[in-house]
Amino acid sequence: MPDKVRIALDAMGGDHGASVILPGADIALTRHPDTEFLLFGDSALINPVLDGLPRLKAMSKVIHTDVAIRMDDKPSQALRYGRWKSSMWLALDAVKKGEADVAVSAGNTGALMAMSRFNLKMIAGIERPAIAALWPTLKGESIVLDLGASIGADEAHLINLAAMGSAMARVLFDIERPTVGLLNIGVEEVKGLEQVREAGRILRETNPSHFDYRGFVEGDDIGKGTVDVVVTEGFAGNIALKAAEGTAHQMGSYLRSAMNRTWATRLGYLLARSAFQTLREKMDPRKSNGGVFLGLNGIVIKSHGGADAEGTASAIDMGYDMVRYELLAKIGQSIARDLQQATETARLAGGATS
Amino acid sequence: MPDKVRIALDAMGGDHGASVILPGADIALTRHPDTEFLLFGDSALINPVLDGLPRLKAMSKVIHTDVAIRMDDKPSQALRYGRWKSSMWLALDAVKKGEADVAVSAGNTGALMAMSRFNLKMIAGIERPAIAALWPTLKGESIVLDLGASIGADEAHLINLAAMGSAMARVLFDIERPTVGLLNIGVEEVKGLEQVREAGRILRETNPSHFDYRGFVEGDDIGKGTVDVVVTEGFAGNIALKAAEGTAHQMGSYLRSAMNRTWATRLGYLLARSAFQTLREKMDPRKSNGGVFLGLNGIVIKSHGGADAEGTASAIDMGYDMVRYELLAKIGQSIARDLQQATETARLAGGATS
Repeated sequence: MPDKVRIALDAMGGDHGASVILPGADIALTRHPDTEFLLFGDSALINPVLDGLPRLKAMSKVIHTDVAIRMDDKPSQALRYGRWKSSMWLALDAVKKGEADVAVSAGNTGALMAMSRFNLKMIAGIERPAIAALWPTLKGESIVLDLGASIGADEAHLINLAAMGSAMARVLFDIERPTVGLLNIGVEEVKGLEQVREAGRILRETNPSHFDYRGFVEGDDIGKGTVDVVVTEGFAGNIALKAAEGTAHQMGSYLRSAMNRTWATRLGYLLARSAFQTLREKMDPRKSNGGVFLGLNGIVIKSHGGADAEGTASAIDMGYDMVRYELLAKIGQSIARDLQQATETARLAGGATS
Repeated sequence: MPDKVRIALDAMGGDHGASVILPGADIALTRHPDTEFLLFGDSALINPVLDGLPRLKAMSKVIHTDVAIRMDDKPSQALRYGRWKSSMWLALDAVKKGEADVAVSAGNTGALMAMSRFNLKMIAGIERPAIAALWPTLKGESIVLDLGASIGADEAHLINLAAMGSAMARVLFDIERPTVGLLNIGVEEVKGLEQVREAGRILRETNPSHFDYRGFVEGDDIGKGTVDVVVTEGFAGNIALKAAEGTAHQMGSYLRSAMNRTWATRLGYLLARSAFQTLREKMDPRKSNGGVFLGLNGIVIKSHGGADAEGTASAIDMGYDMVRYELLAKIGQSIARDLQQATETARLAGGATS
């Protein structure tokens, strides 16, 4: 176990930049005093904020760069002008060089993914990375992936996602054989995208030993916690995540206005405010902020672009946990084992994975 | 305006069949006494239930058939053994022959869609049908389509969906120029599926006169009510819908358990129960039950397979409204107009629609 957890923080990412990211780091540091920070970005923007956060300042080193990736850059543009010198690149490079244990950025997802692949490279056997996140469910939490790293997925990639997601579940939830479902528009074998049905057929026939394949699940199964790991292609996964966030926001808004309508409802609200506090905490998207990039030779956490300081702290916490509990090494081992079996069994079943 | 609204009801569809569908029809009849029903299905199952519902019985005619489509039939199977004689087919056929104004079924979506296409045929200019539904939002309601009629969609189909959805919005919401958004995983023009970006480019450049194209929207924009019409391909649309339903269910469940925790929260609940009733009604999926099949020469409403009597009544209500306000004719006209413009402008813009 490492002595200190060294976090490389892209201080320029996201909609708010250093003014929100550094206070977020300060919150995370309170929770985990055994953390050190490398702060990458424009020192003229970082230092004034850091001067107001003496505790964080004492545990940080600022590495200046003028170059920051913009939120609307195409990945190819970002690579062209941001490679070697942008705050995002330098944070990833610190992980590559072993100067940091994890990189955290709230920057443009496409650019962060492109730079992560370019700099850290993929784990052997994985062709495309994935973004996985924890999704609060009625039973606790599930892992959902991919949430937008790749658009479209063939059956081989879906099987890779099952291997990566189940490895993450094994270490995070401490379950030897996590349950896995493929997200589809019906539980019947005859429905849905061809590649999803094909992945389902292969998983059913090969019956992998490292996870328990439970068949197709539907959108409402995610929140029910029907399986530990929900596997989907990145376009649908991203839309499902945001539709769920939107619905949670919408219900909160309805509830607030309904509770404010009469003296009785307002009094009821006061009496029950601890319950509303619990609900707010359960559904607070800031608490589950932080997508984990899977499949890379290094830990990269993507914080939400619009995250506030509390949300940023959650993303940093997730990075901290991944390092502290050596998840990367365990995931790498599990993935290698799963992939080996998946490849062998797929070959036996007709060679649908390459 | 027709004298009576004549509803052809597949009494065998759904998870519960006649025992739930007929009580649902009875509820709908109370709300709209100017309704008549043709009930298709096994009279040995229908008649005993109908005997307990004398009001419905007086306004119904039972058409016996032994054949019912199973919930897990493939569309091709259903067509093979259910054409000409199943309760689903006969309900659609009544619409085709002009004996009924609308068909309502809670049966297998794929089979209902296949039979609808085969029997009623598509409106000229539309290649593939769509399922549209009303989605409750913070601003009121939006129309979301497609929710699963077709898997995958090229740019031409997405533009058709925009035309059909905006036509439905124009008549249902009484807005001359509804706002339309394309569902994507980011609002930037560089993100997302190729065909979604291409549809966006064409709509932006051609700027259709009958709706107001607002660009890309994300999953959380649906519940915000950012646009009147959200256009998406059926796989992602279906998953978004069910993820949102699952989240609503999940929040309701958290809230119930939180309100039950201490004497203060329980008392608060009692005082504020009118607020919870309001919330329950706002989010009750039964109230917005009923997908409308668009693009066909006839009105077909798909009720949810698991709907209870109240949900069934909502689906029948939606069919009633579609007939009573002559939405089909208006939608047909609008679609023809939109398609004409879309085709012309797309040709000018490079011929991406055929």
